[in-house]
Amino acid sequence: MKWKRSERLVDMTHYLLEHPQKLIPLTFFSELYQSAKSSISEDLTIVKDTFEERGIGVLVTVPGAAGGVKYIPKVSEKVVKEVIDELISELGHSDRLLPGGYLFMTDLLGNPELMNRVGKVFASAFCSQEIDVIMTVATKGISIAHAIARHLNVPVVVVRRDNKVTEGSTVSINYVSGSSRRIETMVLSKRSMKSGQRVLVTDDFMKVGGTMNGMKNLIEEFDCTLAGMAVLVEAAHTDERLVDNYYSLVKLKEVNEKDRTIKLEEGNYFSKGGYDR
Amino acid sequence: MKWKRSERLVDMTHYLLEHPQKLIPLTFFSELYQSAKSSISEDLTIVKDTFEERGIGVLVTVPGAAGGVKYIPKVSEKVVKEVIDELISELGHSDRLLPGGYLFMTDLLGNPELMNRVGKVFASAFCSQEIDVIMTVATKGISIAHAIARHLNVPVVVVRRDNKVTEGSTVSINYVSGSSRRIETMVLSKRSMKSGQRVLVTDDFMKVGGTMNGMKNLIEEFDCTLAGMAVLVEAAHTDERLVDNYYSLVKLKEVNEKDRTIKLEEGNYFSKGGYDR
Repeated sequence: MKWKRSERLVDMTHYLLEHPQKLIPLTFFSELYQSAKSSISEDLTIVKDTFEERGIGVLVTVPGAAGGVKYIPKVSEKVVKEVIDELISELGHSDRLLPGGYLFMTDLLGNPELMNRVGKVFASAFCSQEIDVIMTVATKGISIAHAIARHLNVPVVVVRRDNKVTEGSTVSINYVSGSSRRIETMVLSKRSMKSGQRVLVTDDFMKVGGTMNGMKNLIEEFDCTLAGMAVLVEAAHTDERLVDNYYSLVKLKEVNEKDRTIKLEEGNYFSKGGYDR
Repeated sequence: MKWKRSERLVDMTHYLLEHPQKLIPLTFFSELYQSAKSSISEDLTIVKDTFEERGIGVLVTVPGAAGGVKYIPKVSEKVVKEVIDELISELGHSDRLLPGGYLFMTDLLGNPELMNRVGKVFASAFCSQEIDVIMTVATKGISIAHAIARHLNVPVVVVRRDNKVTEGSTVSINYVSGSSRRIETMVLSKRSMKSGQRVLVTDDFMKVGGTMNGMKNLIEEFDCTLAGMAVLVEAAHTDERLVDNYYSLVKLKEVNEKDRTIKLEEGNYFSKGGYDR
């Protein structure tokens, strides 16, 4: 069956969105739709222009025999700002305040629509770098890790605090937690990563950066490279931070448990160049 | 700016895919694209036919003033079979065998592309039911829960084994783990669910069903209703199962630790009517 252009555009858009960061040969589409390569090229120009116009992402065309087309999810600056504003407005409600100055964020981490946008914002910052794996620590960072992974099309590995039989052989390290200065343990399945891989680390919350630093040590233990760090909320604090090369969307400036007020501001995403990369 | 049909089709496809299970008024699209409602209706017919033809999902049109269009993710029978076959082939490798007859599955749970398809397969089985929340227990079920949630557009709540300050006030229950007959604890933040909600429970692995049964008790504690259960892999066993109304994609029939062989077969997804609902 020969497809009409209108049908091809709908199906092609779906296919590209479901296969981010993957080079798709033009012959794949021309065989699927029983259409000439020249028609497919024209289709792709329409998809490309609309994706760019609407801030959906970028279509990169690689010429030659081994060439094809690749969809790179990249949000517009406006979308990043919208996500940051929404997070600040959501997190500022006084009923989120928990004993010890913590903020309740579990509902936001469980919101698939918001997490999808957060994931795309972070994926945009790393879309032109080589990333092989997204790493996080159980439990709360997992939804962010998967949201980023979906847009970069790479696997997620989850570091645990305990050793479970279902993980097989593991590598474990001890590290000092940032604020409480306690010795803690991190465990990762040996099969999770191969040496030489580039790892993007993510978590929902960072204070001094002890957990992030622990994951950095674990990455070195696997002979892998830390490619970047993405944090949803960073907290202001007086100690020296253990890590510095990270992106955050929101900064928690101050929590007043007596007045029940929460001061938040934009994180370092833009100032660190998250949007320009 | 007035949009061309071809551009509208690309953008509309993206918008619908990003907003599953949400009723979108036709005026939204006609204002966005500065186009007549009749043109939008024609566009939607093309999208609808292509989605159905290609097994992407269903577009439901609701007539009247409060009406609009809703995208319901629903995979074709062929896609369900492909996902099941891929899981069986992946899980059958003898190097997945762990001490105690467990299977290493962490890599599959961390594969965003596979999890997206698994999520869509389970979402298809529940797409015409009212589901308010997806529930799972930390840690390994979280990626499946989020994959289903994305297609049903509902929040995920994660049951924990421990009580963390960041969860706020919690409800905890004790339950008997299925195979080891030990007393275990489950904890869920009080803010996670409102009474009367319909909950879909999911997990990566089920043997006797103790954990599933525990979550069922927790749901009752919140005055909510168990709407269904979705399990990636169920294991054959001799004890009577504690739950019965579940869907599984794969059944682990037998593990021979001496010969290092793993026997797997299709789960109950089709026989329980997962595809017909």
